[in-house]
Amino acid sequence: MLDPLSADEITTAATLLRQHAHPTALKFNCITLHEPLKAELNAFLSGTGPRPARRAFSIILKKGTPEVSEGIVNLTTKKVESWNSVKDVMPTLTLDDLNIIEHIASKDSRVIEACREIGITDMSRVYFDAWAIGIDERWGFERRLQQALPYYRTSKYDNQYAHPLDFTVVADTERQEILSVDVRRVNGERTPVPLDEHNYLPQFIQDHYRPERLKPIEITQPEGVSFRMNGNEIEWAGLKMHVGFNYREGIVLSNIRIDDPYENRERKLFHRVSMVEMVVPYGCPKPPHHKKHAFDVGEYGSGFMTNSLKLGCDCKGAIQYLDAVLATSTGEATVIENAICIHEEDNGLLYKHTDFRDGNVISARDRKLIISQIITAANYEYAFYHTFTLDGTYKLEVKLTGMLNTYCLHPSEQAAAFGTEIARGLDAQNHQHIFSLRVDPEIDGPNNTVVQSDAVPMADPVGSPANPYGNGFYAKKTPLRTALQGAADYCHGTSRGWDITNPSRLNPSTRKPIAYKILNNNCPRCSPNPEAPNECIENTDIVCYIQFGLTHFPRTEDFPIMPAEPVSVVLRASNFFQKNPALWVPPSDVVRDLSSRNAIEARELVETPRL
Amino acid sequence: MLDPLSADEITTAATLLRQHAHPTALKFNCITLHEPLKAELNAFLSGTGPRPARRAFSIILKKGTPEVSEGIVNLTTKKVESWNSVKDVMPTLTLDDLNIIEHIASKDSRVIEACREIGITDMSRVYFDAWAIGIDERWGFERRLQQALPYYRTSKYDNQYAHPLDFTVVADTERQEILSVDVRRVNGERTPVPLDEHNYLPQFIQDHYRPERLKPIEITQPEGVSFRMNGNEIEWAGLKMHVGFNYREGIVLSNIRIDDPYENRERKLFHRVSMVEMVVPYGCPKPPHHKKHAFDVGEYGSGFMTNSLKLGCDCKGAIQYLDAVLATSTGEATVIENAICIHEEDNGLLYKHTDFRDGNVISARDRKLIISQIITAANYEYAFYHTFTLDGTYKLEVKLTGMLNTYCLHPSEQAAAFGTEIARGLDAQNHQHIFSLRVDPEIDGPNNTVVQSDAVPMADPVGSPANPYGNGFYAKKTPLRTALQGAADYCHGTSRGWDITNPSRLNPSTRKPIAYKILNNNCPRCSPNPEAPNECIENTDIVCYIQFGLTHFPRTEDFPIMPAEPVSVVLRASNFFQKNPALWVPPSDVVRDLSSRNAIEARELVETPRL
Repeated sequence: MLDPLSADEITTAATLLRQHAHPTALKFNCITLHEPLKAELNAFLSGTGPRPARRAFSIILKKGTPEVSEGIVNLTTKKVESWNSVKDVMPTLTLDDLNIIEHIASKDSRVIEACREIGITDMSRVYFDAWAIGIDERWGFERRLQQALPYYRTSKYDNQYAHPLDFTVVADTERQEILSVDVRRVNGERTPVPLDEHNYLPQFIQDHYRPERLKPIEITQPEGVSFRMNGNEIEWAGLKMHVGFNYREGIVLSNIRIDDPYENRERKLFHRVSMVEMVVPYGCPKPPHHKKHAFDVGEYGSGFMTNSLKLGCDCKGAIQYLDAVLATSTGEATVIENAICIHEEDNGLLYKHTDFRDGNVISARDRKLIISQIITAANYEYAFYHTFTLDGTYKLEVKLTGMLNTYCLHPSEQAAAFGTEIARGLDAQNHQHIFSLRVDPEIDGPNNTVVQSDAVPMADPVGSPANPYGNGFYAKKTPLRTALQGAADYCHGTSRGWDITNPSRLNPSTRKPIAYKILNNNCPRCSPNPEAPNECIENTDIVCYIQFGLTHFPRTEDFPIMPAEPVSVVLRASNFFQKNPALWVPPSDVVRDLSSRNAIEARELVETPRL
Repeated sequence: MLDPLSADEITTAATLLRQHAHPTALKFNCITLHEPLKAELNAFLSGTGPRPARRAFSIILKKGTPEVSEGIVNLTTKKVESWNSVKDVMPTLTLDDLNIIEHIASKDSRVIEACREIGITDMSRVYFDAWAIGIDERWGFERRLQQALPYYRTSKYDNQYAHPLDFTVVADTERQEILSVDVRRVNGERTPVPLDEHNYLPQFIQDHYRPERLKPIEITQPEGVSFRMNGNEIEWAGLKMHVGFNYREGIVLSNIRIDDPYENRERKLFHRVSMVEMVVPYGCPKPPHHKKHAFDVGEYGSGFMTNSLKLGCDCKGAIQYLDAVLATSTGEATVIENAICIHEEDNGLLYKHTDFRDGNVISARDRKLIISQIITAANYEYAFYHTFTLDGTYKLEVKLTGMLNTYCLHPSEQAAAFGTEIARGLDAQNHQHIFSLRVDPEIDGPNNTVVQSDAVPMADPVGSPANPYGNGFYAKKTPLRTALQGAADYCHGTSRGWDITNPSRLNPSTRKPIAYKILNNNCPRCSPNPEAPNECIENTDIVCYIQFGLTHFPRTEDFPIMPAEPVSVVLRASNFFQKNPALWVPPSDVVRDLSSRNAIEARELVETPRL
């Protein structure tokens, strides 16, 4: 029920939608699985309801216009079940959409003139990175806008972001028309093109490679991997889940459950987990940077931007790949091979204790299951690693790499305070990456409450009978009862965490609700709109949007290509199990790793350490 | 000059100190390397000064008394250079010291009576975990105190912490004498011994092991490791440093420097890095928990508590071990074999970018060098991983595992709010682990300044000419000029970081001081004493004490043995290099990893994914 649409299902849906709209010509923005409702799915899974029908959901443009409709197709009955036109919305700019501006901009006379004025006459060397527009008061939803940031390339494989130009272009995506060329003048002057070379591809820098510095590390699983797949269902080390994929969110993990070794039953953790948004606001107030405010998931689609991964490069070890099937604007299916990587990694110590009295040492190794994808959002790359470990912990780690967005500095300008001059004449502006991880929890049952936990000192003063030495502190628990209360900020001073609890299931030892806790100290401030609907979110079917990310003040080290920077958020069992849930993992004395070697044996060149 | 004392040097120092003190009988608390001063060392390394003499530093007790002296021995001239008695200090309790209380407590009539009253008559089943004392007003520095927390064991290998008893014992370490047995009564009653079994060793739980769930992962380096050692000097991937070790700090990394591929010179990063303290305050105000306030490094010695590591258990891959040589109380040398583990790990993506226009993909893999040790502090274990990656980043990751400190609950009591009832009748109290990483920086030169960096919105209001859309934000830089200013707290709201800058070296692109930045968002609050000396710390030879850690509200999952919990702090180049310093790493297309396999090839049992 949760499998992504097959190629056949995509073409069937497109055909039915076309027939429905006939004779209007359509441009498909997306055709994707319409997932069954949680209640419907759970009823089927528990044997109390019928199998949900396969359905497709599509966002459709009337060709050549910004008019948007949404359609739902029942693939079982082969019927279009709904078709609604929607207003004041801006569907994802697909990669096809984003190609448009480059095709038309280089032929536009205003663009050609803007280039000529700074000495560029060969338009084949000018490239236009397309972006959605953060804000442009000149147009509204009557046009499907995009903007382009132009760059010059001195040679075919030259760094795309080394020579930024000082103008931007706005286009109407559907009419394929340039609306405006906005040339920036500083004191009335154009900015010369920064022409220093900053390359990173082997053809330019291979003389500087030092391959002898790193000896290979080989990671193998001679007995095969520890997970099993049945279609998109995966089972690993007592965990089970469905691995889905769509054009917008990319990887979707559903129906995540775990074998409880103490209660001898399978327990649900999360109904659905996915990365639903990322915003990248740029912090320079000067034009054109105020228009750079990318919503990288919603505006472009993490699924659409997904890389086809390569064994030994992106992925190391024994790898299971899954392909992704997506729909084109003409309603055909297209395949991204190796879109999802599934593999295991050793994760160091799982637990260890030495009894100093008798020298009894117990030690076991942890293991990761990692379900990952990498996306390219024009200049930036984001690698998403959905990671499970043997104690039932889920961690989403994001690695940020790729290229900085750059801009040219006029000789009279300096990059500070809103950016860094990362190379002569090149400004990279301050920005943030704020991710939104959507977790639809089902902590051992459908009705959950989030309880905020703050470490606070006892109120009783030092020296009082209740707190004579002043050392008392406790976890102050605050249930988040309404949506407004739910818009909670992180608080570093109280080591704030959030427990997703199930109030109707008590831990037999603590006699308090079982929980999974959210650990997020990379959590930017959140500003709830006080006019937002203020529903009850206590002991009911809730959804958590976990915001996390980082503030990026660019460094010279981030150029010409950024070393990967990690940021992560963790969900960890908190009195969910009766005991350490990983005690089924045999200690290393029992299942000794026989492949490890003393480095001295491994390489004779290593000299004997002297102590 | 920085190598730890050899066995011969230890016995030589002990002999010289004994001769000096003759006829007073001595008990050696430590005999360790007296490191040369930074200026002295740097002068020698730069060829402008003589080789510093080898010296030993020793803390010495007059046998049977708490009288403390400190001595320095010149091992080159074989002379005791100084001998000073010191007052109001409490040297480390060595493992030998900590054994004393267990030997004497079980024979003490008050202890025997305290046990008898709760039904225990077989004293061979009662064990006494020795601790330093957080506070006990009854005695001061006129005695070298320790306390013991007693536990009962129902069988030889029974969980040491499953059956805590309701009294504590205070002893005089040097007189080997029990001073007090403090029996806790609740409503006048003793607390029955909690007798439920909670075991985790194979002999108890091996029937629950599921070895078939995890297939082996083999990590090998067929061409050997990428680092070279010359005694305690290590060279790896352009990084060089000295790996030392002492009784107190354990691993000490010195003279850390890196090849700069752009300036074609070796640049100093840190003069010395070590973990100098950890405090574990317990948050329950009721006796006896107020006396649990362990300074695990200073009170017991990370070196003394170091585990002898095992290939395939603690360490995986191709491992270089170093032994540690320590001094006993009688001045002999003792060896901890395999005290330090040095190895490499693959670290995933180093950098990646896909040019969406031409499909050019560049991707390289990162590598870690990890220098680690694991210590056992009675119930707890701490694993310290000093980690370097190819972009010049240093990360200290600590993994916390081992056993919770437990206490018995009287039937009238509940664990909340100051602890968790982790199993029936067993209370584990709230506590924190606050580590102090000492970094003596030498960021490309001896004189550095720490500059605090806060992400703040522009002061200009939204709609003003300077900030029309309100998106402006910048890094507000505040140099920490005095020691009091240097006692800075973390601030989550501003993504606060600290740049260790060298004001006299400017990055040629940014034209601002080069720096390494401290990333620490696991940073507990810090309360400087306003009466502390307030020296200048600007553009001078400074030392940073980086406090980081976590607040632990115990979970049932932490029992009977804790799944490892990581916490870390990072130091990262920040405009220190002219460009990405890892561009010498060949991309994966150039040095393809040939050992990676498709999981389908690796195991036929994997079924074909369906999409």
